[in-house]
Amino acid sequence: MAPKRKAFINVDLGEGYGNYKCGPDEELIPMIDHANIACGFHAGDPLKMQESIQLCKQHNIKIGAHPGLPDVLGFGRREMKLDAEEHTANVIYQVGALKGFLEAEGLELHHVKPHGILYGMMCRDIEVCRAVMTGISKFKSPDGKPMKVFGLGGTLQEQVAKELGLDFVAEFYGDVKYKADGSLVIDRKKKPWDVDEVRKHVRQQIETSTVTAVTGEQVNLPTGDYQVSVCCHSDSPGCVEIVKATREVVDEYNKANGFL
Amino acid sequence: MAPKRKAFINVDLGEGYGNYKCGPDEELIPMIDHANIACGFHAGDPLKMQESIQLCKQHNIKIGAHPGLPDVLGFGRREMKLDAEEHTANVIYQVGALKGFLEAEGLELHHVKPHGILYGMMCRDIEVCRAVMTGISKFKSPDGKPMKVFGLGGTLQEQVAKELGLDFVAEFYGDVKYKADGSLVIDRKKKPWDVDEVRKHVRQQIETSTVTAVTGEQVNLPTGDYQVSVCCHSDSPGCVEIVKATREVVDEYNKANGFL
Amino acid sequence: MAPKRKAFINVDLGEGYGNYKCGPDEELIPMIDHANIACGFHAGDPLKMQESIQLCKQHNIKIGAHPGLPDVLGFGRREMKLDAEEHTANVIYQVGALKGFLEAEGLELHHVKPHGILYGMMCRDIEVCRAVMTGISKFKSPDGKPMKVFGLGGTLQEQVAKELGLDFVAEFYGDVKYKADGSLVIDRKKKPWDVDEVRKHVRQQIETSTVTAVTGEQVNLPTGDYQVSVCCHSDSPGCVEIVKATREVVDEYNKANGFL
Amino acid sequence: MAPKRKAFINVDLGEGYGNYKCGPDEELIPMIDHANIACGFHAGDPLKMQESIQLCKQHNIKIGAHPGLPDVLGFGRREMKLDAEEHTANVIYQVGALKGFLEAEGLELHHVKPHGILYGMMCRDIEVCRAVMTGISKFKSPDGKPMKVFGLGGTLQEQVAKELGLDFVAEFYGDVKYKADGSLVIDRKKKPWDVDEVRKHVRQQIETSTVTAVTGEQVNLPTGDYQVSVCCHSDSPGCVEIVKATREVVDEYNKANGFL
Repeated sequence: MAPKRKAFINVDLGEGYGNYKCGPDEELIPMIDHANIACGFHAGDPLKMQESIQLCKQHNIKIGAHPGLPDVLGFGRREMKLDAEEHTANVIYQVGALKGFLEAEGLELHHVKPHGILYGMMCRDIEVCRAVMTGISKFKSPDGKPMKVFGLGGTLQEQVAKELGLDFVAEFYGDVKYKADGSLVIDRKKKPWDVDEVRKHVRQQIETSTVTAVTGEQVNLPTGDYQVSVCCHSDSPGCVEIVKATREVVDEYNKANGFL
Repeated sequence: MAPKRKAFINVDLGEGYGNYKCGPDEELIPMIDHANIACGFHAGDPLKMQESIQLCKQHNIKIGAHPGLPDVLGFGRREMKLDAEEHTANVIYQVGALKGFLEAEGLELHHVKPHGILYGMMCRDIEVCRAVMTGISKFKSPDGKPMKVFGLGGTLQEQVAKELGLDFVAEFYGDVKYKADGSLVIDRKKKPWDVDEVRKHVRQQIETSTVTAVTGEQVNLPTGDYQVSVCCHSDSPGCVEIVKATREVVDEYNKANGFL
Repeated sequence: MAPKRKAFINVDLGEGYGNYKCGPDEELIPMIDHANIACGFHAGDPLKMQESIQLCKQHNIKIGAHPGLPDVLGFGRREMKLDAEEHTANVIYQVGALKGFLEAEGLELHHVKPHGILYGMMCRDIEVCRAVMTGISKFKSPDGKPMKVFGLGGTLQEQVAKELGLDFVAEFYGDVKYKADGSLVIDRKKKPWDVDEVRKHVRQQIETSTVTAVTGEQVNLPTGDYQVSVCCHSDSPGCVEIVKATREVVDEYNKANGFL
Repeated sequence: MAPKRKAFINVDLGEGYGNYKCGPDEELIPMIDHANIACGFHAGDPLKMQESIQLCKQHNIKIGAHPGLPDVLGFGRREMKLDAEEHTANVIYQVGALKGFLEAEGLELHHVKPHGILYGMMCRDIEVCRAVMTGISKFKSPDGKPMKVFGLGGTLQEQVAKELGLDFVAEFYGDVKYKADGSLVIDRKKKPWDVDEVRKHVRQQIETSTVTAVTGEQVNLPTGDYQVSVCCHSDSPGCVEIVKATREVVDEYNKANGFL
């Protein structure tokens, strides 16, 4: 049985670029707990980072860095083979830049969540995972404790976070489906969700730490005793409705278990 | 008469990009006091920033951020008209990124010196100057005091630094000539210097706070009571010899005045 | 009295970038005569250029190159001071790249129209204008005649096009207002148009070669005997309605004057 | 026995970027037959492309396009997973851009040679190879014949060139060593060569179509009846001496066999 603990919601935000807008950040921010702010390598730019942070500040949202591969054209979704030191340095650069804006606003860095294909590469390649997590480990939580890092329980992400003494937060996915092996189904072009399906999908994950795979199997999501956070995306079609539904399910669950 | 105070030497470093090397940083670093490290917008990349910082650390050199315009192809030497908020955000982004690497190495940010045409634009345009300095003012010195900013005395740079309560450091130039109005002669293609001329050029500046313009006039360099630092460039032809000569002149001066 | 000649409509297209979409190109293309395809410097990417060309081909739209300043983040709307040779080379590069895709599809390059602030700089600075037009003049029309270049009549654009023997096409603007001096009012953030106002605005321009300035004056638009084309933008709010209205007014005019 | 045919020399050129210089192009160009000009994605910029072409024109060197992955920071040497259509479009874009400069100078496109890791990926992955060659096949030789493409005989490059009816030119490498399987030894940091070793290395390849691998085996280089060209690099340490030695060996061979 899944242990009971308060559930949270995180969303990738600030993923526009110059004149290009990505998601309806202003509508999403009031509904979430944790914002993952793009840091300029796969999306986001200095001005956008600053604006996103100021918007989150108004709604008291915890802010994390969302570093990606250096590929705006590919939105950080095209695999690139970098040296380990390049991965580490890219993470320090991006997280440092975000921290610059946070400190300018008197805010603190709450967590780090790698973006897109980099997140996926970390699940499959321990060298990449160690290189990225090494970059993250250079930052400390405001209380001097290890930095929080978001990832998938039961994968190399959890293993390496433990190795390096990072504070792992296990993620569920509100708007992404799973394969039978517990990995995520990444579509190049995102398909719309039925909101009731989102509710069911989220409820199953937070209540039982399992998920029903696209092929029908019930899959165990090993979240251990970690804090959990449900991830939704600002570039999913119908994202406002998806996050709204996720918020309701998460609030119900938190209330029912005395966490609200 | 110019007030006596210890003179220092600063050099722009880490200005390569990927496979492209810029100056002989390893040879210059042991001879200088303050390194201005490029932050990725006009030159430099995350790995290079990290390596430059580690090299400076070995030689106990104070490290500053060297933010530039977002234009690697133009090496930050092509004027771009950005909004004030864009300038401010660009500075916070770049300085924050550098600070990320510094903290990862247990080091502190010593100063900020804007690069190239951005430095020049700050002398001519008070909006740009305020925008850039506002970005710099978001960072504090390790002792909680205002951040040090390098610039030209008697220009808008000094005026705005004062306005915003920043700790101004007045620069001399070891390898750049001056016009009769005290502004710098910027050549698209840098010309070689005679080392004896460098010595004379530097000695005049640190001892008398004046310089002889290219047109022959003796020009006053208003450095007030500020700390002074002589700037040399790692991409000047013969830069190792230039910095060596500058070091000798500066050391002689410091010794003669009891600062060594 | 304005000379009667067939009027056309041109729209800037293909201005997305990677995952970022710009305008509703699929809806606009069937309604226009001339497409200005972004070439990757201010917007557009190789895949997008290819797709845009293929879409235009399906609808038999004439295709022109739409080169801009090298600044995706600023969408080619931030002034940059480049050397004349840099401007010339940038234009040859971008137009050549577009021509590569056209030739791969068995299509011909119909015209060149510079984008954004570069277009504006050409009206104000004869060096920039000559540099850009020199780049354009390296390309020939399929029949061996000089290349068509779109621009504002009565400005340096017309003057330099004549100087260099280019085939000038005078533009009107369907979704941009004019100042009393005949120059365009460029808003950083575009405001929505009332469709009836668009009709009136376009009708006045094509029928009388005048426009009513934002300050109320009737302004002469010197279009000479040049071919004329009304420009609309794919990133204006309500652009589908704007282009539809423009199409109707242009068709009415062309029919009334026996050009349809 | 290797068939006798005239041997040529090709070198990658124009691989600087903005202020960054790469190799001593001016010294190399007079010694070679075929120049592969970087097209801006992994190195090179519009101005550099134009200058390189003008320099080659002065020495009557045949000019080819040298398209690479879109990664200046990685110099096109970091593997990126792109969609097949992205590879095709990237090649058309880059070759088209180069052709723009060639046509502006009244010159013709002689060949295409993919750069760096893209060249290597084509030897290992038939999808990538087809995607790149499909882009190349959109261009024709000036005489209307299929475009020449440079590559390694006996690999997927030769196979796909044949499939698509391209005019394959088999390359030898003057400054790169081979493994026992006939593939190239790519060092992240290039090591210097002894010039006598270069002579021996080149002589063996052009006279016998074999090479001695780093592990000592004599390896067959299947160059068939294709035209052959020996590749040297402008960023190898000692490249001027290497190309000089290669030129001498190639000239000797061509003379001895009646090709000069």
